[in-house]
Amino acid sequence: MLTKLKRLLIGKPLKTNESHSQKLNKFKALAVLSSDALSSVAYGPEQILIVLMAVGSGALWYSLPISLGVLILLIALVLSYRQIIFAYPQGGGAYMVAKENLGINFGLTAGGALLVDYILTVAVSVSAGTDAITSAFPSLHEHAVLVAVIIVVLITILNLRGLTDSATLLSYPVYFFVLMMLLVIGGGLFAALTGHAAPIHQHAAVGTPVMGVGLFLLLRAFASGCSALTGVEAISNAIPSFKDPAPKNAARTLLMMGGLLAILLAGIVYLSYWYGVHPESDQTVLSQLAGNLFGRNLFYYIIQVSTALILILAANTGYSAFPLLAFNLAKDKYMPRPFKVKGDRLGFSNGILTLGALSIVLIILFKGRTENLIPLYAVGVFIPFSLSQTGMIIHWIKKRPKGWQGKLMINLLGALICYLILVIFFLTKFPQIWPVLIFVPIVVTIFHKIHEHYMLVAQQLRVDFSEPVPTVHASDNIIVVPVAGITKVVEQSLTYAKSLSGNVIAVFVGDSPEAIDKMNKEWNEWNPGVRLIALHSLYRSIVSPLDKFISTVKYKADKRGATVTVVFPQFYTKKWWQSLLHNQSGVLIKASLIRHKDVVIATVPYHFKK
Amino acid sequence: MLTKLKRLLIGKPLKTNESHSQKLNKFKALAVLSSDALSSVAYGPEQILIVLMAVGSGALWYSLPISLGVLILLIALVLSYRQIIFAYPQGGGAYMVAKENLGINFGLTAGGALLVDYILTVAVSVSAGTDAITSAFPSLHEHAVLVAVIIVVLITILNLRGLTDSATLLSYPVYFFVLMMLLVIGGGLFAALTGHAAPIHQHAAVGTPVMGVGLFLLLRAFASGCSALTGVEAISNAIPSFKDPAPKNAARTLLMMGGLLAILLAGIVYLSYWYGVHPESDQTVLSQLAGNLFGRNLFYYIIQVSTALILILAANTGYSAFPLLAFNLAKDKYMPRPFKVKGDRLGFSNGILTLGALSIVLIILFKGRTENLIPLYAVGVFIPFSLSQTGMIIHWIKKRPKGWQGKLMINLLGALICYLILVIFFLTKFPQIWPVLIFVPIVVTIFHKIHEHYMLVAQQLRVDFSEPVPTVHASDNIIVVPVAGITKVVEQSLTYAKSLSGNVIAVFVGDSPEAIDKMNKEWNEWNPGVRLIALHSLYRSIVSPLDKFISTVKYKADKRGATVTVVFPQFYTKKWWQSLLHNQSGVLIKASLIRHKDVVIATVPYHFKK
Repeated sequence: MLTKLKRLLIGKPLKTNESHSQKLNKFKALAVLSSDALSSVAYGPEQILIVLMAVGSGALWYSLPISLGVLILLIALVLSYRQIIFAYPQGGGAYMVAKENLGINFGLTAGGALLVDYILTVAVSVSAGTDAITSAFPSLHEHAVLVAVIIVVLITILNLRGLTDSATLLSYPVYFFVLMMLLVIGGGLFAALTGHAAPIHQHAAVGTPVMGVGLFLLLRAFASGCSALTGVEAISNAIPSFKDPAPKNAARTLLMMGGLLAILLAGIVYLSYWYGVHPESDQTVLSQLAGNLFGRNLFYYIIQVSTALILILAANTGYSAFPLLAFNLAKDKYMPRPFKVKGDRLGFSNGILTLGALSIVLIILFKGRTENLIPLYAVGVFIPFSLSQTGMIIHWIKKRPKGWQGKLMINLLGALICYLILVIFFLTKFPQIWPVLIFVPIVVTIFHKIHEHYMLVAQQLRVDFSEPVPTVHASDNIIVVPVAGITKVVEQSLTYAKSLSGNVIAVFVGDSPEAIDKMNKEWNEWNPGVRLIALHSLYRSIVSPLDKFISTVKYKADKRGATVTVVFPQFYTKKWWQSLLHNQSGVLIKASLIRHKDVVIATVPYHFKK
Repeated sequence: MLTKLKRLLIGKPLKTNESHSQKLNKFKALAVLSSDALSSVAYGPEQILIVLMAVGSGALWYSLPISLGVLILLIALVLSYRQIIFAYPQGGGAYMVAKENLGINFGLTAGGALLVDYILTVAVSVSAGTDAITSAFPSLHEHAVLVAVIIVVLITILNLRGLTDSATLLSYPVYFFVLMMLLVIGGGLFAALTGHAAPIHQHAAVGTPVMGVGLFLLLRAFASGCSALTGVEAISNAIPSFKDPAPKNAARTLLMMGGLLAILLAGIVYLSYWYGVHPESDQTVLSQLAGNLFGRNLFYYIIQVSTALILILAANTGYSAFPLLAFNLAKDKYMPRPFKVKGDRLGFSNGILTLGALSIVLIILFKGRTENLIPLYAVGVFIPFSLSQTGMIIHWIKKRPKGWQGKLMINLLGALICYLILVIFFLTKFPQIWPVLIFVPIVVTIFHKIHEHYMLVAQQLRVDFSEPVPTVHASDNIIVVPVAGITKVVEQSLTYAKSLSGNVIAVFVGDSPEAIDKMNKEWNEWNPGVRLIALHSLYRSIVSPLDKFISTVKYKADKRGATVTVVFPQFYTKKWWQSLLHNQSGVLIKASLIRHKDVVIATVPYHFKK
């Protein structure tokens, strides 16, 4: 039943050697891995305008130089991540670069910050998409959390089906959004140049001096604009998902993404300036631009729908990168081992499921109002950005390949801008981002605890091949068979026990002297060839007298190096409800014995035929 | 931790031979077992008046002859249950009587109807008590269901502590209620006789003819009044809870209860008639009487509180009778075996917990509005009443002890009245009581299904003492040890396996030819003296190749009558969170193997020391 449901939802299992079919070509990879970055076009320019508008509409022209800064940072990031892709083609991105060049703690900091960030990405983008849906269908408003959770579940299932399946489906809305944006930008520029369109508000000329515009304000606007750059790192984490030659394909995809993102950002910012768009609380900048250019017709609504879709799909970038990063951490024994296991469809199902579950927790915890998490998640991504750039600087200095000075310069520039942005973030948005200072150290501590445990376990389990394997004698085993009466099941258990060892003891717990006498009498009559020990329980509990008896046996056995095995029958009834009619106390007794007494438990199945 | 909490809630375990300390004297027994019956004084007379009032206040005098009928029935029931107590001193009441004399199906019908009835009693009386509480504290009104559930939980805990503990605590409010009622009746009669009090309304003289009073109406009023007799049977179910001589003490307690109930019922009905109380929707008859006699002073409120308390405590009668009845049914193998087990405090804890849980389900299902269940529960109690009276008739005819004719007459009268009331119930309240015709047959069917299963099991497990116990040879055993690599745990498992049998096979599942080659090479190097079978898994699953392999081994073993044992290690980490870091897939594999392959599973514990 469960297996069938699983098949239906995620498809039939794939053989390990079918993994090539689950690799991405550039076209699909761009769709899956850039949805996060591209979706920021929908809110990045607006973030800049909102900060500037605080001074007045005259200050809006500053969005042009600020966006120029963002674009320079984008170019620096794309170029330096391109270098990371070639230097670390096995993937792992910032974690790998920082670990290799700056040491494990910096690596774990980068990795931990990114893992948390992907969870935030999913929660924030699905919540944003849900807002768009509930704006369109107000009756769904009171079920917003439920809608968001359902969307996360759907995306999770899609990802469990495997990368190519989800990529095929998801590439349509991504490219459709890009097309729509290009149409808006193209149409807007054409109208502006030909003078066919009227601005919404008059824009101030570039360079107009404005009262109250200080460095702090400009820095805040710049930092807000930089939140549009989240997601740029995703491709470097997911190199193994690409078709061969993976690094080359990944690098090209990164360049395409950078180019697209630059064009869309520059276009939207310039049009917003030219048309004098003011940020408004009840309408997005994109909506104003589209509405002004094309009027409120079907085309306008299609643009709105495609924007809502891309916001939701931004979550998918997290799904592509989180499991691979978790795999890399698990490979180095900093995350639990299950994150290393590939599922039926060759994705890292445990990573996918964990990401889905944790983002659902976040959505429920914040009741779907996750907007306040946006600055947190922007700063969370600049920590690994900074660390990976720094790592690359060390890399070039150590390796010094041909032309390393130029490569070093690119990463140096990237690093400087990243650190600058981190400083700006902490200066301008501290009240929203302080949690990062708490959760990153916590996550790193957890990584270390896990690592320490695995190391201790490996040490304890290591076998010295030079030592001979210990030899044993069958007589060493003492077998204890708890019996509740004389039945076929007891007979079967005793027969089994006698086949293992000549040293079998049956033990009976009676709650009255009469019950004990009766049992002894019947046992002698039956005479199964096994000694019976009858214990008296004052408190009607079977567990504690049995526990004490087995402790005594174990103590004696330990002294002569013998093993103690306790044999328990387990009933299997024909129908499920019948199992309710049998005391399942055996399960509890077994659990208690094996946990505390260090004895072997042998479970002998008894299948009722009727 | 859990153990400590349990101790705190229900007290330290008692030895089996301490059970005398958990027996009830007459004083406490009366309190515990009669609270249900006595509480009906609070609503029984009112039920009669409500039916009569439908015709008009002139018809209210009919309450006197109707109550006389109820009193006659009460006397008949008390006398005949007294005879049941002596005839069946081991308890079990209607179930025993009907089973012994009318056959098992009538016994099960009586028992099933009573079990369901006790659940209804708890739900109905706790809901009634909760209504009284939320009337006093309206702010609790929206949490009525929660309040009711908390009360059920408290009563359940009290009963888990043992009979005497709960009896001591519960006897105060019961006797306090009796005292209050006697004061109301005494005061009312005194005032009426001395002419100190004025009636609320003028009452019509007895015998005044009233238009519209037909037989149907009078019968309905009579049936409603009979709901005051529920709970009379409880003592006969609980004889084993009494101090020795149990039957004599139980019989005396029954007489005391009958006497008290008769006095209170007669008194309240007569005063209601004399003072011309009309039933009102917003004030109970008791409240009107008390208010009229003493005014709305502190004393009036004390009476109200004591009434609310007795309504809640009526639930306790169910707790005293249900577990004993369930025990009797379980002893005869018609209910699951756990109902036979005495808990730490010598009560039948499983019965107590089941009753608590099921009544909570009812309360939640009906959202605390359980008044509609009252007729259902009244009719539910007259089924066992009728069956036990009928059973006693057969009993006397078969046994014919000295003076059996007189005893027969008592039970004959009781039986006739009970059947009459059942007929009246079905004629006048069919829309409310039809479910009884469905649930009683369902419960009886379940009893039979359970019985049938236990009989089949007993038959399959029966050992023929004349047949010799089969002999076995150690070589018969094949031991399979699944291994994931070469570790101390594998070494320990292999050592254990070799101590059991000379026929040990290690099996490894690898997901690539390289992994298999590597394992084979290392195994040969290690040379533990055990053959290794390496299997290739195409789908990365360990379960299915292992499953297939064990099927093959099992098939071969079966042919030569050998047993197959599969050895699994189980890890125990130092700290609980560390266990999350180890694949628990072993648990699933074990469950699947033991369920489907009929092999023995030996679990070898491995305790990490660090």
